[in-house]
Amino acid sequence: MITPPALAHLIEELERLPGIGRRSADRLAHHLLRVPEAEALGLAEAIRDARARIRPCSRCRAPAERDPCAICGDAARDARTLVVVESARDLVAFEAAGGYRGLYFVLGGRLSPLEGVTAADLDVAALVARATEPGVEEVCLATNPDLEGDGTALLLEKALLPSGARLTRLARGLPAGGQIEHQSAAVLAEAFAERRSVAPSRAAPHGA
Amino acid sequence: MITPPALAHLIEELERLPGIGRRSADRLAHHLLRVPEAEALGLAEAIRDARARIRPCSRCRAPAERDPCAICGDAARDARTLVVVESARDLVAFEAAGGYRGLYFVLGGRLSPLEGVTAADLDVAALVARATEPGVEEVCLATNPDLEGDGTALLLEKALLPSGARLTRLARGLPAGGQIEHQSAAVLAEAFAERRSVAPSRAAPHGA
Repeated sequence: MITPPALAHLIEELERLPGIGRRSADRLAHHLLRVPEAEALGLAEAIRDARARIRPCSRCRAPAERDPCAICGDAARDARTLVVVESARDLVAFEAAGGYRGLYFVLGGRLSPLEGVTAADLDVAALVARATEPGVEEVCLATNPDLEGDGTALLLEKALLPSGARLTRLARGLPAGGQIEHQSAAVLAEAFAERRSVAPSRAAPHGA
Repeated sequence: MITPPALAHLIEELERLPGIGRRSADRLAHHLLRVPEAEALGLAEAIRDARARIRPCSRCRAPAERDPCAICGDAARDARTLVVVESARDLVAFEAAGGYRGLYFVLGGRLSPLEGVTAADLDVAALVARATEPGVEEVCLATNPDLEGDGTALLLEKALLPSGARLTRLARGLPAGGQIEHQSAAVLAEAFAERRSVAPSRAAPHGA
C-alpha cells in the first residue's frame, strides 16, 4: 500500500459523507492536500465551529445559533400555523419561496422501512407536545410527495388527531412552470384526480 | 436570512471543494450537523492530521509521511526507469495495476490553456534535474491520452531531450476489456493508425 496512512484515513472520513463514493473521496482528499494549507484548515475549522455553535432550536428543532431561533423568536410571525417539514433544508426552501409567515417544526427524518427508519426513530411525541400548545390552530404536514413522505404524514396525522388542531397537507398536482409532456404518469394521474372546478355554475368535475 | 452564520460559513467552505456545488454543499453541511459530533469532528481532525503529516516526497513529489516515500526509498525498485504522471492519483492507479517496478515523478499538473495553466506553472526544471541524475535510463511520459496530456508530454519531451535518457510514452489503442462498438471515433482511428503486425512473414500493414 503506497497511500500514506493519514491520507488513507482522510479518504475514509470523506467517504462517510452522503453521496461521496470512493473515487470522489479520493479526489477530494488529494485536493485538500494540494490547496494552500489555510484553505484545507478553513474547512476543518468550519466543521468544528458549526458543531460548536449550532444547536437545534428548542421550539422548531431547526439548526440555530440562538434559542429560540430567528423564526420562533420573531413575535411578528403567526403562531397559529405550524408547517411540519422533514428536514431543515425543506424549511429553508419554504422561507426562500417567501409568503409563509407562520412557524415550523422540523421532524428531522421520515419513515423509511427500506432504510430501517421506523416510527420509534422519529420524535413524534415532541411534535404532538408542540402542536397541543395553546394557540396552535393548524398543523400542515409538509412531508415530501413520495411514498416515504406520504407514510410519514399518515403516521403524524394519526398522532395529531387528538390535538384538535386542523390538519392539512400541501396541494398535489402539476408543478408550476413544468410542462405536461415531461410529467410522470403519477403526477398526471394525481393532477387529474384532484382537478378543480373553474366554472362553478356547472356540475363539479368529480361528478362527471 | 434564516441560515445561522456558522452553517452558512460551513456551506461556503464545502462549496470550494471540486465537484461540490451549492446544493451538495448544503446537503453535506446539514449532514455534518446531524451526525454524532465525533463523526463530524473526525473529518475535521483527519483534514488537520493529513495536512500536518503529509509532505511531497523530495524525490518523486508524491504525498508521503516519510521522505523519501515508500517507493523512492525501496532499494528493490528499478531506479533506471522513471514514469512521469500528472497526479499522485495516476501513480496510485499504476501501483494498483501492479507489474511496474521502477520509480515515478509526479508532475502535479498539466498544461491547460483553458484553465490558465502554462509551462511556467509546471516545475519542469525539477523533472529535468531528476531525470538527469546518474542511473536514469528511460523516462516514460505517462500523461493522460487527451489534448492537455499530449501537450504536456510534448513540453516535457522538448525539455528532456538533452538529458540523454530514452523518452517513451504509453501505448495508445483499444482499452483492454472494452468493446469496439462503444469506442469513440478518436479511439478507433488511433487504434487503426497504430495497428500492429501479427503475421511477420507477410508485408507490414503500414505498407498496405
